[in-house]
Amino acid sequence: MRAASITASFTPSGIPTSYYNLFADAGLAAAPPLDPETRAPVAPEKLAALFAGGLLEQELSPRPQIPIPEPVLEAYASFRPTPLRRAAAFERALGTRSRILYKYEGASPVGSHKLNTALPQAYYNHLEGTRRLATETGAGQWGTALAFACRRFGLDCSIYMVKVSFEQKPFRRTMMELFGAKVRASPSELTRFGRAFRAEHPDHPGSLGVAISEAIEEAVSVPGTKYALGSVLNHVLLHQTVIGQEALRQLDELGLFPDAVVGCHGGGSNFAGIAFPFVRHRLDGRELQLLAAEPEACPTLTRGRFDYDFGDTAHLTPLVKMYTLGADYVPSPIHAGGLRYHGAAPLVSELVARGLVEARAYSQERTFAAARRFAASEGLIPAPESAHAIAAAEELAAEADAEGRERTILLCLSGHGLLDLSAYDGQP
Amino acid sequence: MRAASITASFTPSGIPTSYYNLFADAGLAAAPPLDPETRAPVAPEKLAALFAGGLLEQELSPRPQIPIPEPVLEAYASFRPTPLRRAAAFERALGTRSRILYKYEGASPVGSHKLNTALPQAYYNHLEGTRRLATETGAGQWGTALAFACRRFGLDCSIYMVKVSFEQKPFRRTMMELFGAKVRASPSELTRFGRAFRAEHPDHPGSLGVAISEAIEEAVSVPGTKYALGSVLNHVLLHQTVIGQEALRQLDELGLFPDAVVGCHGGGSNFAGIAFPFVRHRLDGRELQLLAAEPEACPTLTRGRFDYDFGDTAHLTPLVKMYTLGADYVPSPIHAGGLRYHGAAPLVSELVARGLVEARAYSQERTFAAARRFAASEGLIPAPESAHAIAAAEELAAEADAEGRERTILLCLSGHGLLDLSAYDGQP
Repeated sequence: MRAASITASFTPSGIPTSYYNLFADAGLAAAPPLDPETRAPVAPEKLAALFAGGLLEQELSPRPQIPIPEPVLEAYASFRPTPLRRAAAFERALGTRSRILYKYEGASPVGSHKLNTALPQAYYNHLEGTRRLATETGAGQWGTALAFACRRFGLDCSIYMVKVSFEQKPFRRTMMELFGAKVRASPSELTRFGRAFRAEHPDHPGSLGVAISEAIEEAVSVPGTKYALGSVLNHVLLHQTVIGQEALRQLDELGLFPDAVVGCHGGGSNFAGIAFPFVRHRLDGRELQLLAAEPEACPTLTRGRFDYDFGDTAHLTPLVKMYTLGADYVPSPIHAGGLRYHGAAPLVSELVARGLVEARAYSQERTFAAARRFAASEGLIPAPESAHAIAAAEELAAEADAEGRERTILLCLSGHGLLDLSAYDGQP
Repeated sequence: MRAASITASFTPSGIPTSYYNLFADAGLAAAPPLDPETRAPVAPEKLAALFAGGLLEQELSPRPQIPIPEPVLEAYASFRPTPLRRAAAFERALGTRSRILYKYEGASPVGSHKLNTALPQAYYNHLEGTRRLATETGAGQWGTALAFACRRFGLDCSIYMVKVSFEQKPFRRTMMELFGAKVRASPSELTRFGRAFRAEHPDHPGSLGVAISEAIEEAVSVPGTKYALGSVLNHVLLHQTVIGQEALRQLDELGLFPDAVVGCHGGGSNFAGIAFPFVRHRLDGRELQLLAAEPEACPTLTRGRFDYDFGDTAHLTPLVKMYTLGADYVPSPIHAGGLRYHGAAPLVSELVARGLVEARAYSQERTFAAARRFAASEGLIPAPESAHAIAAAEELAAEADAEGRERTILLCLSGHGLLDLSAYDGQP
């Protein structure tokens, strides 16, 4: 067995000192992004208008392990390593014979895994003289993380928040503003694209595709501003691999290796974060189920087509090869706002297409029922997004029980739902 | 130096294996509670109608260290030891030369220190056959903790929530209900006292004194039910000493000992929790400032009288000697609902009266300004209660800077404010 993903080094407290670059390590290749004008592979210089050089380098890096800069490690130290816990009370509530363990990313200051990538993104931009980052956010988890990271590294932060979430989750906005960010509902009146879109669709609830277009427009038109994305891109997934690397090590300390690894899936970042370091073992012949859990309301991996598509509604981004429901797809306004994205990360898509990762879709009703059981037994209120991973873990445990097997199931609890309690209130 | 408070033993992960009983250890005595009818020291049997025997024994125990039962230690293990962190970014924001460290109790599943006592209270009641616990809650932190602990040990839970908080903080109620508790606004129509009180004061915002009366009435009138209190009593303060014991050890590992220890003060439990293990050192001659920070809207320690008084509005409790604003005092509805109590823990009162503990009061405006600075720099949104400790730490740091001194200030960040963001929203 090749051991690159196991021999990763850690700080004394247990934080990985490098990001794990699965595709380079495993010799896998993903289809390159295409220039929207020429349809040829996009020139890196074109992306330099949007992203810091240090991040672009990571996007295309051939190195299996990429060192984490010292200032980012220092920032991680206030919340990493995050806890890995056995959900013993939840197992009892289910009556399952399987072990269920969860890696809890909600312990970060902003309450989700998004800080893992917000910090290096703000750091590299700060290093290269960027004064301001523009971004979009769905449920607000990513926006909160970037707002905090920008504050930490001295950048201004401008956030386009999908309108339906802006209205459903006012406290996320308060939190971003506490961290000094400017927050507006998208579609907004602040960009050319936003104004045109509103004129055409006055009652539109917004979507990540639209908000991305607005943030990109701001990044290319306001001097000193660059763009930041909270999921989908290779470098974002790379940053999230701290989750899986820690989990591998924490499980190893318990003498465990999982039979299944589960994460919820919107753009793909928390799923990749928990799963990629384990994919290496699967490629090396170890039996291991990797399951991406997505909402039925936005079934990108289970119902989308695997093809080149735009990342945003205005078609400003390069074309990337991914599972997609179409750049104009508008999911219904479910509570799991962070999973309302028409596309999937190209790297996750590639693994699904190769049969290395399985995807299943779950209804909102089923995910909240699972989340309520988890909350009542473990005392942690899951984010509506993370609840999809819990529903999937329940299903895997039930399947194992039906087969008379005892499995070890690892799930990523990507965030807490303390700012989503109104969603729980309405449920039975 | 006597070392009882330092030689406490810990689990391998760093949780104290016993509670620290300061008054027994230091040979201090507090005035005994008096029977409201006879005005003689209350007979323990009389209290047995309200409290489990295991808890009453702790209330009066002469043992300096009281072992923590194994099932409680197991429950603690999911969140203890809680982190001790240096607030380096906050220090920079203040421009102070002093070190500020915080013990973060908001990392517990329910988001505050209250779980430290909810768990042993539910455990001892479960052990002795209690089927149901009745309690009151102000801001909802205590109610959430008791609801969770009851769920863990298989008890039903009935909660009287101060009406103004019930209305201001609907999500706390959702959380208690997720954990299976019954929650009602107090004054309610469910108790004789509540009905009479409402008839007399139809628009009353409620108070902890009133809610306590209702919970006690339910405990004594419904079979199988006992009462639980989240602060004030000796055994509650005792349970909270896990905070200070851990902090002592964590500081010791950093080679530090504080010059000042700060906690917010409502009924006294988080303050006692962080401070009591340090009081021992003060008694042994070490120079150490112990500061209780309370709201100007409910200035129990700074403006109250030190005298025997009732703990509740209906005068159902024994009389205890404490700083009190009078059992009928109704503080204005500030956001720090957990600090709206007319009395103070008798043990804390005794230390204040002896000059061992200092008290200062802070305005709501000042505490929120401090909390905003802390949130923006450290990324953690403090509970409005905990914000008082932050305001006090700022003041101590400023005083030290003015004197040209560098001090080490330890504060207890007793809970997060993620369910109090509406309070932040309205502030400048």
